Amino acid sequence: MTSLKDNKDAGPSRVVISVDAMGGDSGPATVVAGIYKSARKNPEIHFILHGPVDELEKLVARRRGLSDRCEIRDAQGVVSMEDKPSQVMRHGKGTSMWSALDSVRAGEATVAVSCGNTGALMALSMIRLRKLPGVNRPAIAILWPSRNPQGFNVMLDVGADIRADAEDLLQYALMGAAYARNGLSLTRPRIGLLNVGTEEHKGRAELKEAHDRIAAHESEGNYTFVGFVEGGDIPGDSCDVIVTDGFTGNVALKTGEGTAKLIGDLLREAFAYSPLSRIASLLALTSLKRLQKRIDPRRVNGGVFLGLNGTVVKSHGSADATGVSAAVKLAFELARAGFADRLAARVASAAEAAQDGAAEEDRKRS
Amino acid sequence: MTSLKDNKDAGPSRVVISVDAMGGDSGPATVVAGIYKSARKNPEIHFILHGPVDELEKLVARRRGLSDRCEIRDAQGVVSMEDKPSQVMRHGKGTSMWSALDSVRAGEATVAVSCGNTGALMALSMIRLRKLPGVNRPAIAILWPSRNPQGFNVMLDVGADIRADAEDLLQYALMGAAYARNGLSLTRPRIGLLNVGTEEHKGRAELKEAHDRIAAHESEGNYTFVGFVEGGDIPGDSCDVIVTDGFTGNVALKTGEGTAKLIGDLLREAFAYSPLSRIASLLALTSLKRLQKRIDPRRVNGGVFLGLNGTVVKSHGSADATGVSAAVKLAFELARAGFADRLAARVASAAEAAQDGAAEEDRKRS
Repeated sequence: MTSLKDNKDAGPSRVVISVDAMGGDSGPATVVAGIYKSARKNPEIHFILHGPVDELEKLVARRRGLSDRCEIRDAQGVVSMEDKPSQVMRHGKGTSMWSALDSVRAGEATVAVSCGNTGALMALSMIRLRKLPGVNRPAIAILWPSRNPQGFNVMLDVGADIRADAEDLLQYALMGAAYARNGLSLTRPRIGLLNVGTEEHKGRAELKEAHDRIAAHESEGNYTFVGFVEGGDIPGDSCDVIVTDGFTGNVALKTGEGTAKLIGDLLREAFAYSPLSRIASLLALTSLKRLQKRIDPRRVNGGVFLGLNGTVVKSHGSADATGVSAAVKLAFELARAGFADRLAARVASAAEAAQDGAAEEDRKRS
Repeated sequence: MTSLKDNKDAGPSRVVISVDAMGGDSGPATVVAGIYKSARKNPEIHFILHGPVDELEKLVARRRGLSDRCEIRDAQGVVSMEDKPSQVMRHGKGTSMWSALDSVRAGEATVAVSCGNTGALMALSMIRLRKLPGVNRPAIAILWPSRNPQGFNVMLDVGADIRADAEDLLQYALMGAAYARNGLSLTRPRIGLLNVGTEEHKGRAELKEAHDRIAAHESEGNYTFVGFVEGGDIPGDSCDVIVTDGFTGNVALKTGEGTAKLIGDLLREAFAYSPLSRIASLLALTSLKRLQKRIDPRRVNGGVFLGLNGTVVKSHGSADATGVSAAVKLAFELARAGFADRLAARVASAAEAAQDGAAEEDRKRS
């Protein structure tokens, strides 16, 4: 085991990612295979890996050169997919998930990555990293294949919280815009607020209020507000960031994934149907692979927790090595962009502007 | 113009569908082409067609034999896609939409079909047909391509109302089960309640209450309740009917449609990419057509309004002749099954059971 402290001379381009080796559906071997993939592609990445030390040392030793880039932190406890967030908050100390977050808390790593239980990870992130000043509800943001030139849209919240009032939705807009700037390199992202119609009179009361507040914060948030958007705009090109509450966002995410999966399966069946179609699938192999790459959920693996003191990337529980490596890549890009600090500054400036606005209102009233 | 009254001798297998010729994106010519398609396939169907008589007579006369099966009712007004439901409720008299609903109200036709403005059609349906006794909020149900043997699942509400409390969700379960029995020929449909997780402790308070109420009405409703389901189950095989509020259902519907459309477009691009992939697409043509047929939204065109005294089928505004014909086919099947009466009976019996339960409670308390 190499201590990362010995590597300080590696220079300023070194980025440390904290990785929870446990809690994924296919175990630590897959996580180690994933970080090895990333390590080989990118010499700047270093890891702190959390889990049972004996098991992890063996897995890391098998990958040539990985032990030089990867410090192992012993944590014997594992958060399972069945554990309730409330239990994990009380009894989670000593688990690999807790330990992975503590490396970010201590400033040893910039971003944490975990394949574990989403609810537990969010609950632990809230108590270990704490919410940013000015943020009421943190959110989970994901990338969604779209018709936009960047190939993806951002959607949030997809399940951190089932509720969101107008103020929360405004914060999601600010955080989503910051994420799109750093994760998709968009200078001035276009924000859409998810509703059942694009007319301004439609939808629930909190959506109408959120509509006005998001519109009022365009300049502090450095985004363009396109107004209400519909479900069809999530994979579309009318905006770059889709803002919604965690209930609706979670249903939309899983519906979209399920629909894509069904079509993929039916397509495979169609190509296996006759000798002619089997030949066709061979001829179209390159084109189909390009398509699959475009919509493969493993390539956009990683929900990002926004609104905390530190960044957490949640990988799919069922991620394979490619999926884990994609989550690590996302974590690396956000770390290198100094995303956490930029997001904090943006939210703080909006909160300040809102306070100034309130003070102004008070002055007028008195 | 032939009056339908002259055709009474056509026997008991005659089904009359009332069709709004106006309000669709591509005008009455497309609607007439659609009903002509249906008329040629199915000798039992007859139509009452509503719209400007001069225009419609010319369009119908061009289709051989259609005028014998189609009575035209003059209505000069048109409800546009931009009209607000509240305006249409006040000033909608004299429009083709109003007239189409009145044929069902008067018992001349069993089901009405319209490609027009959904909000206006629901608002007019509520005032012209009135809600069934025991129904608080009517719902719009659609068919969704799925992995189930019947090829489709039912989802409701997809946008009649943006709110739904526990009692409304129970009524949706009863109405959705009735629709699945008559529209998909399932003896005992499996009902799932849409949530962000399948664990019983998850989700909003009204969902937990709805969970218990839907479970308690399994026998009156003649369905099996599978509990909470997630977005991925909408195209899945874990249940046949997905119950949700109109906000969530509308977002899910449009997200699924948008995702399917994006994949379809990318697939076409992939096949057009190289000479080899263009040859492949020719070889796989039959298989791809089979796939397309399976997931073509035109083939499942038609949201059904449930909970009214009479059945209304809402076709996509952008439907072409194939889409209109699919909506007419659905209307025909529901009419032939005596769906409206069966649904009314089921809702009434559940309301009675609930009343009996309440009386029983009162007796116990006194």
